[in-house]
Amino acid sequence: MLSSMAERGKTRRQLVASTVELLRRQGAYGTGLHDVLDHSGAPRGSLYFHFPGGKEELVREALQEASDVVDRALEKSLDRHRNVAEAMADFLTRYGHRLEESNFTGGCPVAAVALDVAAEGDRLRTACDWALSGWVSILAERLREEGRDPDEAEALALTALSALEGALILSRARRSADPLRAVAGQLHRLLS
Amino acid sequence: MLSSMAERGKTRRQLVASTVELLRRQGAYGTGLHDVLDHSGAPRGSLYFHFPGGKEELVREALQEASDVVDRALEKSLDRHRNVAEAMADFLTRYGHRLEESNFTGGCPVAAVALDVAAEGDRLRTACDWALSGWVSILAERLREEGRDPDEAEALALTALSALEGALILSRARRSADPLRAVAGQLHRLLS
Repeated sequence: MLSSMAERGKTRRQLVASTVELLRRQGAYGTGLHDVLDHSGAPRGSLYFHFPGGKEELVREALQEASDVVDRALEKSLDRHRNVAEAMADFLTRYGHRLEESNFTGGCPVAAVALDVAAEGDRLRTACDWALSGWVSILAERLREEGRDPDEAEALALTALSALEGALILSRARRSADPLRAVAGQLHRLLS
Repeated sequence: MLSSMAERGKTRRQLVASTVELLRRQGAYGTGLHDVLDHSGAPRGSLYFHFPGGKEELVREALQEASDVVDRALEKSLDRHRNVAEAMADFLTRYGHRLEESNFTGGCPVAAVALDVAAEGDRLRTACDWALSGWVSILAERLREEGRDPDEAEALALTALSALEGALILSRARRSADPLRAVAGQLHRLLS
C-alpha cells in the first residue's frame, strides 16, 4: 500500500530532523545514512525516494533546516530584548542550558559540517557559508539599526557569531556551560 | 633489516605530523589510518609498532603535539607584544595568512576532533579539553599579570579562544580570512 502524501511529508521531515540531530552530535563524516535510518525509524526506500542525491542532498537539506531554525531563534531573541548585547548574552546563556540538558551532545550542526568538509565537498561548504553568513547578516542589520556604521556592525556580528561557535566547542569539550556563560558576559560588554 | 632507532623516531614523528595535518583538514571521523599511512609514506607495520592502541592512541598523540605547538606559538606571540590585546590580534591575523596559504584547509585539529567526538570517546574529549584549557590558562595568566582580577582574566581568555576557534570556522566556510581579521580587531578592543 502506498503511503499517503501526508505520511510521505512526515517521513521526509523525520529524515531531515534526524540528520540535523546527528550532525550536531558527530558531524558529517560521523553521520552515515544507516544512522539516519536508525534514528528516524524511516524505511530505507524512503531515503532514496526523498533524497535521490543521497547523503550530500540530505545533509544540504539538514543545513538549510538548521539555518532556518537558528534564523528564527535569533530574530525572536533580538525582538524580545532591548538591544543586540542583551539578546546575544541571553542567546548564549540559553544555549548553555540546552547543552546541559542534552548531556553536551547538542552542538551547532553547521559548524560540525564546516570543519569536516571544508577541504573538499564544495557544495556543502557553500551551504555552511550560506547559513553562517545569514546569521551574521541578521546580527549586523540589528547593529546598524542601533547606530553602528556598516563596517563596525559587520565586524561585531562576525565576532559575536565566532565567539558563540567557539564557546560551543569549548563547552562541549569541557562538559560545562561555563565557557558559554563567560563568553555571554564578555559579548554583552563588547556589544554594548 | 631492522631500521635504526633514529629512523624509528623519524617515522613516529611523521605519523604524528600527518595525523595532525589530516585532523586539521577533515576531523577525526574523516581521518582513517589508511590516509595517515598514505600521507606519511610510513610502512603499515610501523603504525601498530608505534601505536599499538590504534587510531585513538595516534589521535591522542596528535592532539598532544598540536597542543604543544600552539602553546609555544601563543607564548612566543605574547612575549613579542606589549600586551595580550596586541598579541591576540597579531595571532589571529597571522592565522588568517596561514589559512590563505593552505587554501583554507588548515583549521584547528583540536576543534575538529572536539566536534566529532564529544558525543562519545571520552578519552579523546578529555584530550581536547586538556589542550583547549591549556591555551585558556596561558592567556588568563598573562591577563592577570596585566592586572585583571582572576574571574575577569578567565572570562576574557575563554572569550578570546572561543572567538579564535569560531573565526577559523567562519573563515574556512567562507574561504576568506576576513572573519579572522574582523575578530582580531574586535578582540583587540575587548582585551585593551
